Amino acid sequence: MNFDRPTVRAGTHQVKWSAAEAALGLRGDDPLPMWVADMDFDAPQFLQDAVVDLARSGILGYFSGLDACSEAVANWMRTRHGWDADPAHVLYTHGLGNGIAVCLQTLSEPGDGVVIFTPVYHEFTTKIRRNGRRPHECPLEVGADGRFEIDFDALEAGLTGDERIMLISSPHNPAGRIWTPEEQRRMAQVCERHDMILISDEIHHDLVLPGQTHVPMPVAVPEVTDRLVVMAAASKTFNVAGARTGCLIVPDDTLREKLQTALKASDIQPNIFGVEITREAYRQGAGWVDSLTAYLAENIRVFSEGVAEIPGLSAMPMQATYLAWVDFAPLGMSPEEVSRRVVEEARLGPSPGPAFGTGGETAMRFNLGTQRARVEEAVSRLQAAFADVQ
Amino acid sequence: MNFDRPTVRAGTHQVKWSAAEAALGLRGDDPLPMWVADMDFDAPQFLQDAVVDLARSGILGYFSGLDACSEAVANWMRTRHGWDADPAHVLYTHGLGNGIAVCLQTLSEPGDGVVIFTPVYHEFTTKIRRNGRRPHECPLEVGADGRFEIDFDALEAGLTGDERIMLISSPHNPAGRIWTPEEQRRMAQVCERHDMILISDEIHHDLVLPGQTHVPMPVAVPEVTDRLVVMAAASKTFNVAGARTGCLIVPDDTLREKLQTALKASDIQPNIFGVEITREAYRQGAGWVDSLTAYLAENIRVFSEGVAEIPGLSAMPMQATYLAWVDFAPLGMSPEEVSRRVVEEARLGPSPGPAFGTGGETAMRFNLGTQRARVEEAVSRLQAAFADVQ
Ligand SMILES: Cc1ncc(COP(=O)(O)O)c(C=O)c1O
Ligand SMILES: Cc1ncc(COP(=O)(O)O)c(C=O)c1O
Repeated sequence: MNFDRPTVRAGTHQVKWSAAEAALGLRGDDPLPMWVADMDFDAPQFLQDAVVDLARSGILGYFSGLDACSEAVANWMRTRHGWDADPAHVLYTHGLGNGIAVCLQTLSEPGDGVVIFTPVYHEFTTKIRRNGRRPHECPLEVGADGRFEIDFDALEAGLTGDERIMLISSPHNPAGRIWTPEEQRRMAQVCERHDMILISDEIHHDLVLPGQTHVPMPVAVPEVTDRLVVMAAASKTFNVAGARTGCLIVPDDTLREKLQTALKASDIQPNIFGVEITREAYRQGAGWVDSLTAYLAENIRVFSEGVAEIPGLSAMPMQATYLAWVDFAPLGMSPEEVSRRVVEEARLGPSPGPAFGTGGETAMRFNLGTQRARVEEAVSRLQAAFADVQ
Repeated sequence: MNFDRPTVRAGTHQVKWSAAEAALGLRGDDPLPMWVADMDFDAPQFLQDAVVDLARSGILGYFSGLDACSEAVANWMRTRHGWDADPAHVLYTHGLGNGIAVCLQTLSEPGDGVVIFTPVYHEFTTKIRRNGRRPHECPLEVGADGRFEIDFDALEAGLTGDERIMLISSPHNPAGRIWTPEEQRRMAQVCERHDMILISDEIHHDLVLPGQTHVPMPVAVPEVTDRLVVMAAASKTFNVAGARTGCLIVPDDTLREKLQTALKASDIQPNIFGVEITREAYRQGAGWVDSLTAYLAENIRVFSEGVAEIPGLSAMPMQATYLAWVDFAPLGMSPEEVSRRVVEEARLGPSPGPAFGTGGETAMRFNLGTQRARVEEAVSRLQAAFADVQ
């Protein structure tokens, strides 16, 4: 796989490109959208082939074969993540946004609080609100090493008693923090002490930079499995979110039956293409992921070093994902002025930070899942737009 | 399209074939499953091509282009069904089973009654029950012409006052009754008088036999659109139910906003393949459907004439669908004996009637969406299995 190969995305159905002007006001000469979390790379050849073969089979009606897919999911967890997951514990949803919604609806009541660590993937808050639950923000601190950290004392002190769910992004979106087993243990203990369900959204688990290790929650904290839902999907890793297929992996029988009952009541069954893609991604995709993460690591290095050349600025050090986080606060400019320079002058379209909740006010999230040349171009435009900064 | 071309389905992922033994006990020499409502024909070539092109584009992430799909849906309604539908009124669900569930959850409360006309597609009852609503059965009569008819007086007399939804299959599954505009008007009036939402599940609308006309509910009864949800999909027509994509078409703004809000809360967004298939089916599929319905009409004739040769038996006269209904009551045999002859002796796997609710006790539903040769084989096996009947 040659990730450097230029792809043309303007004028296609990729929402990152087609909706950037409407959503961000991104326009002008050669705009570079860097928002929506998918990559400018083609879906892997072996997944294209799998879909082509399925289409050519001509059999696209009601289908069997979920078990084989669940075997592949479990095998991936075993071989890539050291988690001896049971294929019988895998449930399917229409992507993980849908998975989060089903968990909220099934495992909490209207009005209940849901603990999230902000800044975080903006849809956490949106989904919690849309389902009439209360986002309970626990703002992350920036530690001595420049990474996000949880203030566990503040977390427990801030609980009001009506929190029923803790929803984490592991690794964390934005900035790709990998939670250590010790941190995961402390999160789990809080859930235990305050009788919360722990939803560990591990959609970014494969996008781990070389030398780093993500430990799945049930491996880090085996004792928490009786109140745990792990969410995973091939969609981020293999750039196929349009297939809208995700998994809930639920070791606890009671919890799993509750969720299964809800999925049946809503008749949520995965589509044939999503199942094909998920299965083949996990059967064939290991080498592709290794190449991808090596490539992303270099993108991240280029971006981080480039941003660091702008006095006062830095990208948060990353361990996973392709979603870089830059806080512009040190420049002392208004968010409007930052936006003017980044979006209008540099014609870059990162995700504005405020949507990520408390802690995102002055930040922007840059999607580096693109060709190196585009990352270099983004860096030089950023440097030019802030050339006057001393 | 050559519908006679033999297709091999045993041992594939088509659930109709792969699960027939487990679900029906169908086994033995050359078993013929005739249950699950999809066809043994390959998905149309132009839809295979559309999926292949999409896969080969390599762009399978978050996508735009729902509007173009909704335009195609509306255009199909206009040109094929004489309904000037508004593309802005089209919402998407993960198939119509999911669509029914979302409607039940959003437009009624737990415990509410939902009026259905039995025997009817068994999932109506299942879905109503799974969502904690009460199926309120209104049993169909068999009229002088041998077709299902609604006893409107019994319907209104039987209402208990807590019915909030009327859920109809139009055309009707099983047996493919097309409701006349006058009948639709009377259903709508009952909804009006008793303040019920009318859900018109028109998934079978295209599978109308030559010479017959299905009139969409909003055309038959324009006045009912303020309490109407029409459901439609390309899935039955084009044999692509595995894509799990369906539409709710909701002319009323308040109703549509309610449903849209629910879809957003659950993050129900269609998958990229289902959208591609739906759009291209409606853009390119008219000729294919005309050939298909002509072919199905002949299958139905062969089957009906064959069944009629068994003394006392007849298939209910059909106007639409490929789902024939045979009531074995006139033979005076126990359901077990009928099943022994049909399933064990004839190695045919129709859907057992009891699942369709009151009126289905002694009946079976035969799926005729298959090659003519298989229909002929089924007929001759049936005749052999009941050769002793006088
Ligand atoms: C943490 C996290 N969860 C879920 C999602 C969305 O998943 P899906 O596209 O399957 O709804 C994303 C997408 O960026 C994400 O970052
Ligand atoms: C009347 C009716 N509605 C809905 C469905 C199921 O639709 P889907 O596969 O989109 O859930 C069927 C399938 O046979 C049907 O006959």
